[in-house]
Amino acid sequence: MVVVMEPGAPESRIEAVIQRLNDEGFGVHRTTGVGQSVLCAVGVKREFDIRLIKVLDSVADVYRVTEPYKFASRSWKHENTTFDIDGVTVGGSEVLVMAGPCSVESEEQMEATAAFVATQGATFLRGGAFKPRSSPYSFQGLGEEGLRYMRAAADRHGLRVITEVMEIGQIDLIDSYTHVFQVGARNMQNFNLLKELGRGDKPVFLKRGPSATIEEWLMAAEYVMSQGNPHVILCERGIRTFETYTRNTLDLSAVPVVKKKSHLPIFVDPSHGTGIRGKVIPMARAAVAAGADGLMIEVHPDPPNAASDGPQSLFLEQFAELMHQVRLIAHALDRTIREPAAAS
Amino acid sequence: MVVVMEPGAPESRIEAVIQRLNDEGFGVHRTTGVGQSVLCAVGVKREFDIRLIKVLDSVADVYRVTEPYKFASRSWKHENTTFDIDGVTVGGSEVLVMAGPCSVESEEQMEATAAFVATQGATFLRGGAFKPRSSPYSFQGLGEEGLRYMRAAADRHGLRVITEVMEIGQIDLIDSYTHVFQVGARNMQNFNLLKELGRGDKPVFLKRGPSATIEEWLMAAEYVMSQGNPHVILCERGIRTFETYTRNTLDLSAVPVVKKKSHLPIFVDPSHGTGIRGKVIPMARAAVAAGADGLMIEVHPDPPNAASDGPQSLFLEQFAELMHQVRLIAHALDRTIREPAAAS
Amino acid sequence: MVVVMEPGAPESRIEAVIQRLNDEGFGVHRTTGVGQSVLCAVGVKREFDIRLIKVLDSVADVYRVTEPYKFASRSWKHENTTFDIDGVTVGGSEVLVMAGPCSVESEEQMEATAAFVATQGATFLRGGAFKPRSSPYSFQGLGEEGLRYMRAAADRHGLRVITEVMEIGQIDLIDSYTHVFQVGARNMQNFNLLKELGRGDKPVFLKRGPSATIEEWLMAAEYVMSQGNPHVILCERGIRTFETYTRNTLDLSAVPVVKKKSHLPIFVDPSHGTGIRGKVIPMARAAVAAGADGLMIEVHPDPPNAASDGPQSLFLEQFAELMHQVRLIAHALDRTIREPAAAS
Amino acid sequence: MVVVMEPGAPESRIEAVIQRLNDEGFGVHRTTGVGQSVLCAVGVKREFDIRLIKVLDSVADVYRVTEPYKFASRSWKHENTTFDIDGVTVGGSEVLVMAGPCSVESEEQMEATAAFVATQGATFLRGGAFKPRSSPYSFQGLGEEGLRYMRAAADRHGLRVITEVMEIGQIDLIDSYTHVFQVGARNMQNFNLLKELGRGDKPVFLKRGPSATIEEWLMAAEYVMSQGNPHVILCERGIRTFETYTRNTLDLSAVPVVKKKSHLPIFVDPSHGTGIRGKVIPMARAAVAAGADGLMIEVHPDPPNAASDGPQSLFLEQFAELMHQVRLIAHALDRTIREPAAAS
Repeated sequence: MVVVMEPGAPESRIEAVIQRLNDEGFGVHRTTGVGQSVLCAVGVKREFDIRLIKVLDSVADVYRVTEPYKFASRSWKHENTTFDIDGVTVGGSEVLVMAGPCSVESEEQMEATAAFVATQGATFLRGGAFKPRSSPYSFQGLGEEGLRYMRAAADRHGLRVITEVMEIGQIDLIDSYTHVFQVGARNMQNFNLLKELGRGDKPVFLKRGPSATIEEWLMAAEYVMSQGNPHVILCERGIRTFETYTRNTLDLSAVPVVKKKSHLPIFVDPSHGTGIRGKVIPMARAAVAAGADGLMIEVHPDPPNAASDGPQSLFLEQFAELMHQVRLIAHALDRTIREPAAAS
Repeated sequence: MVVVMEPGAPESRIEAVIQRLNDEGFGVHRTTGVGQSVLCAVGVKREFDIRLIKVLDSVADVYRVTEPYKFASRSWKHENTTFDIDGVTVGGSEVLVMAGPCSVESEEQMEATAAFVATQGATFLRGGAFKPRSSPYSFQGLGEEGLRYMRAAADRHGLRVITEVMEIGQIDLIDSYTHVFQVGARNMQNFNLLKELGRGDKPVFLKRGPSATIEEWLMAAEYVMSQGNPHVILCERGIRTFETYTRNTLDLSAVPVVKKKSHLPIFVDPSHGTGIRGKVIPMARAAVAAGADGLMIEVHPDPPNAASDGPQSLFLEQFAELMHQVRLIAHALDRTIREPAAAS
Repeated sequence: MVVVMEPGAPESRIEAVIQRLNDEGFGVHRTTGVGQSVLCAVGVKREFDIRLIKVLDSVADVYRVTEPYKFASRSWKHENTTFDIDGVTVGGSEVLVMAGPCSVESEEQMEATAAFVATQGATFLRGGAFKPRSSPYSFQGLGEEGLRYMRAAADRHGLRVITEVMEIGQIDLIDSYTHVFQVGARNMQNFNLLKELGRGDKPVFLKRGPSATIEEWLMAAEYVMSQGNPHVILCERGIRTFETYTRNTLDLSAVPVVKKKSHLPIFVDPSHGTGIRGKVIPMARAAVAAGADGLMIEVHPDPPNAASDGPQSLFLEQFAELMHQVRLIAHALDRTIREPAAAS
Repeated sequence: MVVVMEPGAPESRIEAVIQRLNDEGFGVHRTTGVGQSVLCAVGVKREFDIRLIKVLDSVADVYRVTEPYKFASRSWKHENTTFDIDGVTVGGSEVLVMAGPCSVESEEQMEATAAFVATQGATFLRGGAFKPRSSPYSFQGLGEEGLRYMRAAADRHGLRVITEVMEIGQIDLIDSYTHVFQVGARNMQNFNLLKELGRGDKPVFLKRGPSATIEEWLMAAEYVMSQGNPHVILCERGIRTFETYTRNTLDLSAVPVVKKKSHLPIFVDPSHGTGIRGKVIPMARAAVAAGADGLMIEVHPDPPNAASDGPQSLFLEQFAELMHQVRLIAHALDRTIREPAAAS
């Protein structure tokens, strides 16, 4: 921690700050410049609230030196994290694609989706079974029945399942159907849920909150990892800004930033990131070009009649086009995206 | 719903949109202007996702006419909502003050706080018993022991209790100690929790999420109210902007906006809204001047040694000063704030 | 400047950074902690671009110690700045009110406005003569004719004039009519204009840009002051956020923040800050309660027919009500607002 | 314009709104729904301030139907705009690259830069001659001398020149050296400057303001076009958000959005958009993948000693690498980027 004193701060106040730092267990190294003193507090205490020093008299500013997260940081683990999920490697040179509808609606819908996306090169089937929506008057999901449809369809077509868990109470049920737990943007700082998922071993797909800084997002990953589960995948899905044309502003610069600050794999969700079907393909291309390790795409056999998020869901043929285009981009970067099945 | 077609949209596409609206159950009234057609869809369907129409060919824009919330709206209930909480009226001419530490830490701390804030005119004691913090390495709260300390101290000094509930699983326990359930900013869109609280009758104090629009916030209130519980109090606590000097930007214009859109009482939390002790008093004054029905203030008998949020907590004597100042402002607006006890 | 090295940075890279700092003329004081080294660079160079160090290998972060502005800072001048404008003191205990229409439209309009606001206690008449609007198809102002009407009306009623200058080429003309140069939000970083105004002595009323941090705003004030003109008044007028109900989000916490960082007087413009007539009075009250030194209010004798900004302009009788209410708030804070004339 | 009345608005108020619309010259078409009335005002008045209607009694909301801009809109001109600048086509299938230092510093610097970027496939040389910087204590540019160096170097290497104009007074001077006038982000709403540039014929490169919506940006383009100059190039360069790791958040979704709303070419500046050298290449790739028509890149023969923006400027060899990578991306999309010269 570095403490900058105000210009002309009286000696007595500088000493009071040093005393307080000592009381908190920090060693102090003092630099006296022309007009200002700077105190370097030595000692690693990630949980220390630096505002405690900031409010002291004559303190101008306080900066944390140690990153607030440890296990999530690139300085703790230098090489990229990769891990296997049922035969697929996350974080490697293959760019993975997760695809499926916003909500699981029926057995037929999941079968049609799974069959199609599998032949196009997707490796994961996504879909929501529990859908507490922003309006209490909207469709709220099929629950366990939906999980069953999704897993069966995925198994028939060699796909893995990813679905959202919203509460600690749902973990056990969902665990028996899914390969990856998705934590939604609204739950990014549901710390009890994160800790509970951290006690297991199953991968956690952690979406960035719409008003979360990258640092806060990595802190949320730290919550999972601090409990022992190293299998975290980050997913950028748009942040809230003043621009209203798009539902959110997809922050693709988060991809290279996360790659520098952390060793964790990072995916991008251009469907939620734009909220508009016609913008999904260009932003998916851009995401892969920026270096993303994977994509999460909403696709539906009949978007105009989808129970939720139809307007941002791709038609099946659009998904095929997306896969074709992002595959070309991946190749340009010496990465791969699974080829479509011969029969398709 | 109003659908604006693009200038020069072909007749066939206009008819396709009309057909789709009819299929969805809307009557359509068409206006053909010089360059553009406008379709007014008649019928109230609060849950309809207008983006379904927005993605149709040649549609330029779609606007919702009906507000997405009903029970929370001023057009549904014209007069201000007021209700009684153990002898205190919320939403009336008295500006209420809720005060206490961020975290419950000990019996002594709660006693000292309650004794002091009660004599100054506060009517509610606040304090957190469950504290999942943004760092997994920080103090996580005393749990039920904390609830016990808080309720006992409140009872001794004629205060009501308000404390945060974070999960459905905590509702029953907290219910037996609190007068008001606080829903924190991070949980503003935890819809399952809101629905569960909506099935009860106990007041819900709903903080605005840091990236929530006022409309989304009122939709969250609607979640509670749609289940039958009309006792919702809104609380502005700062939104996230590009300004970094303050922790959040306290959006005081939300006070008159909410007063116009809704009949619900609105409070302001200047402690979280600024994150800096020295800014709490001026922003508390400004909140009352803007028309807030109440304040939530962090105060601690020993802020430098608080387990959490010490830097934004007031010293006891600062709280007395705050009460003095906001009382003068309230009087200037023909409202009241409870007088300090004679003995104090 | 403080340079934080990455954990485990090799000694050679730390030495390279030290060498570079020496080359730039800084002395360096090194602290070696458990896992990280911190370098304090000694020497005051306000113009140094700290990103030059940030991009060096193994540098984790760089913090500026010296504030980038000098003359605008509270550490350079401890007491509040006050100055006289034609018999009125800015920055003192009197809260000043500037009032008038968005655009000067006619002699009659300015006379009616000036006569009314003067009797209510305003001390400045505002109005725009040059109005480059966000649409090229809108009213663009009366030019010098407008300045003449405004000054004459102000003189007849004992008011001072404040009007916006948009380009260096307009300075001389406007100078002969105005008491204060207003620099609009869009010009906050028009540095050539600021420097030119800094070479004079006439007060500069500097509005905050809608996406400017407080630091950038104070840097803009520094531009004026660095050329020799100490007469700067800051004006908060709303920042851009994701909230769409209000035109901007009025950042009232800027008032106490500026009071701490700077000695300059700070005003608030709730008309632009909200963009909605019905929100102007509560936010004016809140601004005074937060500690503002003055208000700028749009008022018009006939808002529904105003040439610009009618929807956010008060009717004359609303302005009288505003003055009454903010006067009560000012008194509660031991400040004054000029009393209405006896005859009114 | 569509006017939505509040639920239960009294008939007399609805009639008052209709009367007002008639007075303003609009025909009115009324739809009476179950709970609400909707008024469609017929007539195209781009400059009408819809807030004039919004403030009337019982009006719930008002929506503009006609886009506020005309010449900039895709509905006015369906096919993409392309034009020639000294033998290079803007807006066609070739993705153009503009490259050069932030500031012109010396003849040698410009020669070294021009020689290198030309061999790599850039077609424009950029550089600033007038540099009013955010600090008054920083380097302020070489002025006309800089323009001379830049043009001479460009001519020697077959490049076109693009440089920023900041004030009307600079237009004539800069005109004699440049092929394209750049309007910086801070000047995006300097409407007098835009109008003046609109009276000429030379292309205008219009950067998006850091807090400008896409609609406001297109309105700024409209200012230029409404005066007769159709040669406008838009450039996304990052918007201001709460994220602090990057200097700005590059909004790449603006590329497909602008492509839909407008026929104008759109470029991306990843140097200012991220502010960090190491993020420029991935974001340049992403920009081309999103569909940008060109890139503006800061490159310098000696970034560590650049007079300005060194930290975000690429080294020459990094620029070569960037060109190589974006060329692969362009090819994947069936677009081209000029090949490097054989000799390089």
